[in-house]
Amino acid sequence: MKALVTGVAGFIGSNLADTLLARGWTVTGLDNFSTGRRRFLEGALQQPQFRLVEAELLDLVPHHEHFRGVDVVFHLAANADVRFGPDHPRRDLEQNTIATANVLEAMRIEGVKTICFSSTGSVYGETEVVPTPEDAPFPVQTSLYGASKVAAEGLIAAYCEAFGMRGCVYRFVSVLGERYTHGHVIDFLRKLRQDPTRLPVLGNGRQRKSYLYVGDCVEGVLTGLERGSGRYNVFNLGTDEYCEVNDSIRVISEHLGVQPVIEYGGGDRGWVGDNPFIYLDCSRIRALGWRPRLTIAEGVQRTIEYLHANPALLEPEGAQ
Amino acid sequence: MKALVTGVAGFIGSNLADTLLARGWTVTGLDNFSTGRRRFLEGALQQPQFRLVEAELLDLVPHHEHFRGVDVVFHLAANADVRFGPDHPRRDLEQNTIATANVLEAMRIEGVKTICFSSTGSVYGETEVVPTPEDAPFPVQTSLYGASKVAAEGLIAAYCEAFGMRGCVYRFVSVLGERYTHGHVIDFLRKLRQDPTRLPVLGNGRQRKSYLYVGDCVEGVLTGLERGSGRYNVFNLGTDEYCEVNDSIRVISEHLGVQPVIEYGGGDRGWVGDNPFIYLDCSRIRALGWRPRLTIAEGVQRTIEYLHANPALLEPEGAQ
Repeated sequence: MKALVTGVAGFIGSNLADTLLARGWTVTGLDNFSTGRRRFLEGALQQPQFRLVEAELLDLVPHHEHFRGVDVVFHLAANADVRFGPDHPRRDLEQNTIATANVLEAMRIEGVKTICFSSTGSVYGETEVVPTPEDAPFPVQTSLYGASKVAAEGLIAAYCEAFGMRGCVYRFVSVLGERYTHGHVIDFLRKLRQDPTRLPVLGNGRQRKSYLYVGDCVEGVLTGLERGSGRYNVFNLGTDEYCEVNDSIRVISEHLGVQPVIEYGGGDRGWVGDNPFIYLDCSRIRALGWRPRLTIAEGVQRTIEYLHANPALLEPEGAQ
Repeated sequence: MKALVTGVAGFIGSNLADTLLARGWTVTGLDNFSTGRRRFLEGALQQPQFRLVEAELLDLVPHHEHFRGVDVVFHLAANADVRFGPDHPRRDLEQNTIATANVLEAMRIEGVKTICFSSTGSVYGETEVVPTPEDAPFPVQTSLYGASKVAAEGLIAAYCEAFGMRGCVYRFVSVLGERYTHGHVIDFLRKLRQDPTRLPVLGNGRQRKSYLYVGDCVEGVLTGLERGSGRYNVFNLGTDEYCEVNDSIRVISEHLGVQPVIEYGGGDRGWVGDNPFIYLDCSRIRALGWRPRLTIAEGVQRTIEYLHANPALLEPEGAQ
């Protein structure tokens, strides 16, 4: 099988590429290296079935030849930064919605029939139904990120209907593990390296979130692709548990052997559009035989160990 | 009050502008005249409180000065053609989603706080819940048109959350009445003018649709704006009834005094992405005191009479 992975030099993309290669797939990886890292592809680049293309999805349609002969597109490239949407209101639209439209057009032109897409639990906004199933009530978007992803989902569904494609859309909770590069664990580790005596925390620390280990995430994506029966499939992907931000702080502090004073920013949200409670009902993908192997605590632990072994990732953002 | 109406030379936009002017509003109207018609603004252009700006929303952000001092933006400009989405897959994205992003950016830059947006019942895809309420299960999009509108809704909701705007989103059924320019009534009238002995019909004629008279639509928009209590409000707008395409054909044939042979294309859909049953639960807007004054049959009748009095509109599309 031949895959094309967008965002291949990113956290989830590079893990997925390694798994596909290990299973004997041929993989073309696209990345614009805006946030992707070449070092994440060190293993992949040594394999003859892997090809790396530096490409910008916003210019993609003229370069659709990379899609020729591909069986499955794994479209993971995105602006994954939920928090700073209002600082640059166009970025999510461009990187997540318009880039997806370009990927779909390239697929249509080259006759590629299957797409797997990394969506997000943020598309549920502040739903009142928790744990949240895929057919929760029509949500109201609360972030530009969620809005850009729900827009991309709609495009994929409409392309499936109009052009006979098959789509698998995965609504992820926050993902962590090896090659994790942004999110609260790395934020806290960075801050505690600078000053282990105090830790500023957004919100009141009571925000409840669910996390998924990247290895389980990749397995979930492949399970949905291989066993999903519909032309257009939507799967929540998360653990059947949640934790408070305060719980993560405890695990991280214990690991580092520090006892910082926690300085809460206050309020029940970390930022505008933050959802104080994310917990997805994943029974649909579980019914296909998938389940996560790592708990949230184990995933956080694994992430800390990885960052400890790769301290360059803990340098301030943009310095690597 | 000062309004800015995009798509002001269109069917609903010109009717809304006339109503706003009659109520004493000052109105700036924007249109790119891709489908808008200057003749629809004959009345408005004679009023000193009306100003017409020929503008392309895809270039809008550099021209945000038109939004200065505006109280309410009524964003009606759109590609309203559901049926031919697959023939030009980029058009809905550009005209409906990206144009809405540009309108929101212009509002943000100029500090405009309120937007009313013409969405569509098509965002429900082929929902199984009929009549369909606003909080129906998270839908799967079946048309590029619906996908582009649900994307625009998400952008509006996220802007309301991030920038303290107020949004009213209206999910219309098909609208008809004076200045109606596209849809099945005009299609049938055009065909029967060419050949009154036969009428080709897409699908099996059993598609069930709901229709709303444009005067009732405009009243519904203003009711939601004036009485909706949320920061972000979603309202279905339709009649509490539906009819079969065959029922419309009967009314039209009787009006014309013809008895054509009906030639069905077959299948239960008129085109890819057509929803064979659209019927919205409008109790949310009804609870604010609005109700339609015209039934579907009366609306169809009124539309036929209008087109009869304005035969130029019955020329083949693009010929006016």
